Amino acid sequence: MTTTTRQDCLALDRDDPLAPLRDAFALPAGVIYLDGNSLGALPKATAQRIQQVMQDEWGRDLIRSWNSAGWIDLAQRIGNKIAPLVGAGANELTVGDSTSVNLYKVLSAAVELVRADAAKVNARQRRLIVSERSNFPTDLYIADTIARAQGFELKMVEADALADHMNDDLAVLMLTHVNYRTGRMHDMATVTRAAHAAGALMVWDLAHSAGAVPVNLKGDGSDAAGADFAVGCGYKYLNGGPGAPAFVWAHPRHVARMDREQMRQPLSGWLGHAAPFEFSTDYRPADGIQRFVCGTPPVLSMAALECGIDVFADAEPFGGMAALRRKSLALTALFIDLVESRCAGHGLALVTPRDDALRGSQASFARAEGAYAIMQALIARGVIGDFRAPDLLRFGFTPLYTRFVDAWDAAEHLAAVLASGEWREARFNQRAAVT
Amino acid sequence: MTTTTRQDCLALDRDDPLAPLRDAFALPAGVIYLDGNSLGALPKATAQRIQQVMQDEWGRDLIRSWNSAGWIDLAQRIGNKIAPLVGAGANELTVGDSTSVNLYKVLSAAVELVRADAAKVNARQRRLIVSERSNFPTDLYIADTIARAQGFELKMVEADALADHMNDDLAVLMLTHVNYRTGRMHDMATVTRAAHAAGALMVWDLAHSAGAVPVNLKGDGSDAAGADFAVGCGYKYLNGGPGAPAFVWAHPRHVARMDREQMRQPLSGWLGHAAPFEFSTDYRPADGIQRFVCGTPPVLSMAALECGIDVFADAEPFGGMAALRRKSLALTALFIDLVESRCAGHGLALVTPRDDALRGSQASFARAEGAYAIMQALIARGVIGDFRAPDLLRFGFTPLYTRFVDAWDAAEHLAAVLASGEWREARFNQRAAVT
Repeated sequence: MTTTTRQDCLALDRDDPLAPLRDAFALPAGVIYLDGNSLGALPKATAQRIQQVMQDEWGRDLIRSWNSAGWIDLAQRIGNKIAPLVGAGANELTVGDSTSVNLYKVLSAAVELVRADAAKVNARQRRLIVSERSNFPTDLYIADTIARAQGFELKMVEADALADHMNDDLAVLMLTHVNYRTGRMHDMATVTRAAHAAGALMVWDLAHSAGAVPVNLKGDGSDAAGADFAVGCGYKYLNGGPGAPAFVWAHPRHVARMDREQMRQPLSGWLGHAAPFEFSTDYRPADGIQRFVCGTPPVLSMAALECGIDVFADAEPFGGMAALRRKSLALTALFIDLVESRCAGHGLALVTPRDDALRGSQASFARAEGAYAIMQALIARGVIGDFRAPDLLRFGFTPLYTRFVDAWDAAEHLAAVLASGEWREARFNQRAAVT
Repeated sequence: MTTTTRQDCLALDRDDPLAPLRDAFALPAGVIYLDGNSLGALPKATAQRIQQVMQDEWGRDLIRSWNSAGWIDLAQRIGNKIAPLVGAGANELTVGDSTSVNLYKVLSAAVELVRADAAKVNARQRRLIVSERSNFPTDLYIADTIARAQGFELKMVEADALADHMNDDLAVLMLTHVNYRTGRMHDMATVTRAAHAAGALMVWDLAHSAGAVPVNLKGDGSDAAGADFAVGCGYKYLNGGPGAPAFVWAHPRHVARMDREQMRQPLSGWLGHAAPFEFSTDYRPADGIQRFVCGTPPVLSMAALECGIDVFADAEPFGGMAALRRKSLALTALFIDLVESRCAGHGLALVTPRDDALRGSQASFARAEGAYAIMQALIARGVIGDFRAPDLLRFGFTPLYTRFVDAWDAAEHLAAVLASGEWREARFNQRAAVT
């Protein structure tokens, strides 16, 4: 691939059937945006839609919009648009709160199920919640808090040691499908089967998967391959806007059991009630996934999220998630090749798997010295990726709007930053609050 | 007051120093909006600000806006604008999540403090969380879930029986300052002192207080009068938009103790970490109230909330919350008098206290028959209040934008609806999803 030219990349873009989707986004001129895995870009439709929500629904119709504009159904409506992107069924997935809060709900439900199982057969209770040490910290913090409060223990292990913990002490395996640092992707079905074979429950965080890679939460339909719970983020590859509400999914078998055995998830807010407008004093969980809803959703942010997800409907005629995945893999493979050839000798070490089956939609390189400053120098040139402590340069590729020529240009800028040493300038070494 | 005329009301508006504040809101023509206690009206500044957030901060500056636009500080910045409205100090109150979720955080923290107190002196643990039976249901549901999980019991009592429970079995008294149905307001300092005298903690829900009545969470500065925890709603009298993020306050003495004794609130998300961008595997709570932050906040909805709160700064030159309270009391007193005189004989029974000291910013009337349909008929006439099951007509008065002539006209419409019997029409009797 070292013989690839910029012309070749332009040709790839010309031949890319997904290329027109880029026009759905309001991307700033002079910027190559490779941070859609942190904050997705603004869809053009969002601004107009949010004006409508503000002026017509909130401003003019006021409280009536809960009915007339369907605000009350917004969580389920958006959930049903996300569901096919992650292999969930209709009315199985809902939207609201943050990823952290949703993880708290499902992990609490999972440990309650584990405890109930042990109690039923009078067995010793499985005691470990296992996760990867390099999982996104919020997942570890939430799991640790639940573990301490509920008599479990959070065990953090390296990815390649997971197999050692598939035993009868494993209560819940909680993993992020695509690692936020390395971009390494787990084989969801295989890992889920292994967790189930060990008698444990499987919770997936899809923050870096939903909208980026095909996800099949229900597997082949067997209980062994079908995950138990999942959460995911609305503001990365789903382009829902900064801090967009997150989503939550529970396998219908667990929802049915929670109903039968009168279990509740702990954030038992009024909009998760079976009949919120009866204003009864007793909590009675709603049917289905709606029992994982808590308080009133932030409607403006919800409406923006819906616009982000609607772009995926535009991608359907071009092959949908499968086509997006092919393009994503081509983009990241090209970028990795270009960086490794153009930046050779500059101490960059690829930490993202080369194997397509193991790679999400990003490419990360470690560099022992100056990774933060190098990213700042790149950003000053209009190439926006991000830095992850202590030493990672992270580049996310959103196939909806990233071009092959962007990969070329970004690699060229990176080579220039490294060759010139411009990253050593003091201005690139001043840490900002958010890195 | 039966001699009040519409001309008198117009004169009151002419003489009202707060009258110009109405111009800050985009109120629809032909509507008398008396439901700001459910969803506050749209401030004119909000639409422009949200466009700016979308186009410039999200669309153009993308991920950089966490630093350049100060998104990372948004929760604390807005918190510091709400704090003076509720008698909290700088950096003591923060914003995010829903009221339900925030209540879960503070109530969990409160029961942990109670348990720690009992453990310290090896005493029998206080076991009751007491609240009003007519508290807003989400508060009761959240409290019930926490009570069950933590070995406490939720006891729901009538407001006039609260005194009977001020004893050594009371762990936490959790009340909503202004009742959402009746508009009855507790004397915050007196109730807090009584709870503290009983050795219990005091949690206040300010959903129907913040921005409507002056609130003094810290009391006279003594521990006896100063509340322990509080939460509140952003989308009612604060005009933050549908489902706007909520706020949370904890007395600094408890925050300091949680820090000393290494307690955490259960929703230990990454943005409540002392150094979120270190991405460390161990949760270390941030200093101060920020430990009550959880996940990434919904920035669009946060920005809209800030616009709503900024209107209160415009009210400062006119006397601020004290002047707003005077106007609010005058409006509700006027409306009550007008309804009672114009609608006499139609079976309306005032459930809101006449005593200014006990009345929030609303007026509610019970009617045994047809309350739902009567409200629908009123709404069809452009007078928007709401119905609360089973029999309440509820009218909220937001002194920022409600006029005295609105109270007059609303009472006239109500009288006409009752006199004509038009509410018996079938179309007014079909229940909508949201009532």
